[in-house]
Amino acid sequence: MAGMRPTGRVHLGHLVGTLVQWAEFCRTHEAFFEVADLHALTTAFERTETIRANTRELVLDWLAAGVDPGRCAMYVQSHVPEISELHVLLSMIVPVAWLQRVPTYKDQIAALGGDIATYGFLGYPLMQLCDVAIVRADTVPVGKDQLSHLEFGREVVRRFNFLYGPTLVEPQATLSEFPDVPGIDGRKMSKSYDNQIDIADDEATTVKKVRSMITDPLKIRRNDPGRPEVCPVFSLHKIVNQTRVPWIEENCRSGALGCVDCKSELAEKVNAFLRPMRERRAALDPNDVDQILADGARKARAVAKKTLADVRSAMKL
Amino acid sequence: MAGMRPTGRVHLGHLVGTLVQWAEFCRTHEAFFEVADLHALTTAFERTETIRANTRELVLDWLAAGVDPGRCAMYVQSHVPEISELHVLLSMIVPVAWLQRVPTYKDQIAALGGDIATYGFLGYPLMQLCDVAIVRADTVPVGKDQLSHLEFGREVVRRFNFLYGPTLVEPQATLSEFPDVPGIDGRKMSKSYDNQIDIADDEATTVKKVRSMITDPLKIRRNDPGRPEVCPVFSLHKIVNQTRVPWIEENCRSGALGCVDCKSELAEKVNAFLRPMRERRAALDPNDVDQILADGARKARAVAKKTLADVRSAMKL
Repeated sequence: MAGMRPTGRVHLGHLVGTLVQWAEFCRTHEAFFEVADLHALTTAFERTETIRANTRELVLDWLAAGVDPGRCAMYVQSHVPEISELHVLLSMIVPVAWLQRVPTYKDQIAALGGDIATYGFLGYPLMQLCDVAIVRADTVPVGKDQLSHLEFGREVVRRFNFLYGPTLVEPQATLSEFPDVPGIDGRKMSKSYDNQIDIADDEATTVKKVRSMITDPLKIRRNDPGRPEVCPVFSLHKIVNQTRVPWIEENCRSGALGCVDCKSELAEKVNAFLRPMRERRAALDPNDVDQILADGARKARAVAKKTLADVRSAMKL
Repeated sequence: MAGMRPTGRVHLGHLVGTLVQWAEFCRTHEAFFEVADLHALTTAFERTETIRANTRELVLDWLAAGVDPGRCAMYVQSHVPEISELHVLLSMIVPVAWLQRVPTYKDQIAALGGDIATYGFLGYPLMQLCDVAIVRADTVPVGKDQLSHLEFGREVVRRFNFLYGPTLVEPQATLSEFPDVPGIDGRKMSKSYDNQIDIADDEATTVKKVRSMITDPLKIRRNDPGRPEVCPVFSLHKIVNQTRVPWIEENCRSGALGCVDCKSELAEKVNAFLRPMRERRAALDPNDVDQILADGARKARAVAKKTLADVRSAMKL
């Protein structure tokens, strides 16, 4: 089970870090993928007007990336009311102090300001556990920054099973294999830094973005020797242009390869890498998204109702 | 809208303070009465095994007291999932600090110990608001100790309506007319003090309990003059034996009426007062309770679904 917030389009970082793995999970697992609209509210309750449109764009990106709705359940979090019901039930056994101790809690309040210090935001890691537990997921692909949330969730599951008898599944993390993907400014690719290359970008925009990428600051003229290990352009070659990596590394170091040429090749390869997804995306009918999400909610709720019934029964409700 | 926790049987204090009013509301309002099983979990998550049996006893007591399921919706809180869904949505706009400031929060943790300092217990006043708001209740009968919760709830409604447009109803309190009913030890009648006279008690038990009541500690011998204003026996006469109050007051003060006779009369009147309810209770088929609660949940959910749809639409979900 995995999810993403409907906060915008999917970029290359999500794609190689997450969606390639999701597409693979569809072939190997009974998979559940959630558009986390309730989570989006935890940090954006004052600007909700984009959630619906973003949900549609997000699902189109998932489909473009090859996540197969015929082989998974793809649904909107708030369309599965059992998640909220489980959240309320589990809230009764979770000490406030556990939630306050989750490392991201105080960090994010410091980063985003006190306005987000809501009851819902405090309960966010518990809601994440409910997303996972309600579909009895045993495997959760997470980034390192989410490991503390998963560990919190496992603690809640153990407490529940201790108090009421074995009922909930303790989820295991599978860490994403791919390293962080750098954005055009060299920092981790992220919408909050506005440094991303989106699946939904057209090819000309992609070329323009790649051309504006920063490179090794010590390689100033064309023939200066470069240091690939500090260059985000080189990092992207390693992802979308793997066979050419030895040649590029050698010629960058020697000074034979200039940054302009290196970027031109990268732009071409990024576009080639994204082209099948962009074509698939263009061929999709946005109106199909509603039906896919309705089907997904039905599949998820079939499992969720059973889990909730077991939880209620264990609690003797 | 009003509710009670399924924590045990209903006593004379609930009856005259609350249920007489509920029975009246059935005649004058579109009324919603809830068995608050989720609230029971906030303070009793480690001993849930009595909730089901207590729910049945509670509803039998309500019916015995004349609360008419044909003229109200009588339901179990957790059978209306829209309450939990609304709770999660509203949690996003409620600062943690508002909940920490509710006066009962720190008081109860001090009284009951830190184990109840759970996320669910912290959110208890918000859940109370959801109980009320989901059925669009405009009137809530409350005791003085619950006024701060209602004021908190009104604040949440105003914040929601300010952020997303007028959607939720701001509930008004109607304070209970009756004074606190004293228990047999002179303190407020309460199950936690084990000083109550239950509807479900038999008449002999009632006589025994009334005989054991404390009276004016300065009236030691039969003919000592008494002070009705400090005597819980006299307080109960004022509730179940109103026509005789002037005579009793005069003869207690003069010393003509001894406590033994005074208590015998009270026991008889308490039994006479409770007899029609006890007879009604004995005639009830406990198996009907399930059907009544299923009908009640259906009625409540018809309103609740509409409210939740309006809330989701206002939030642009």
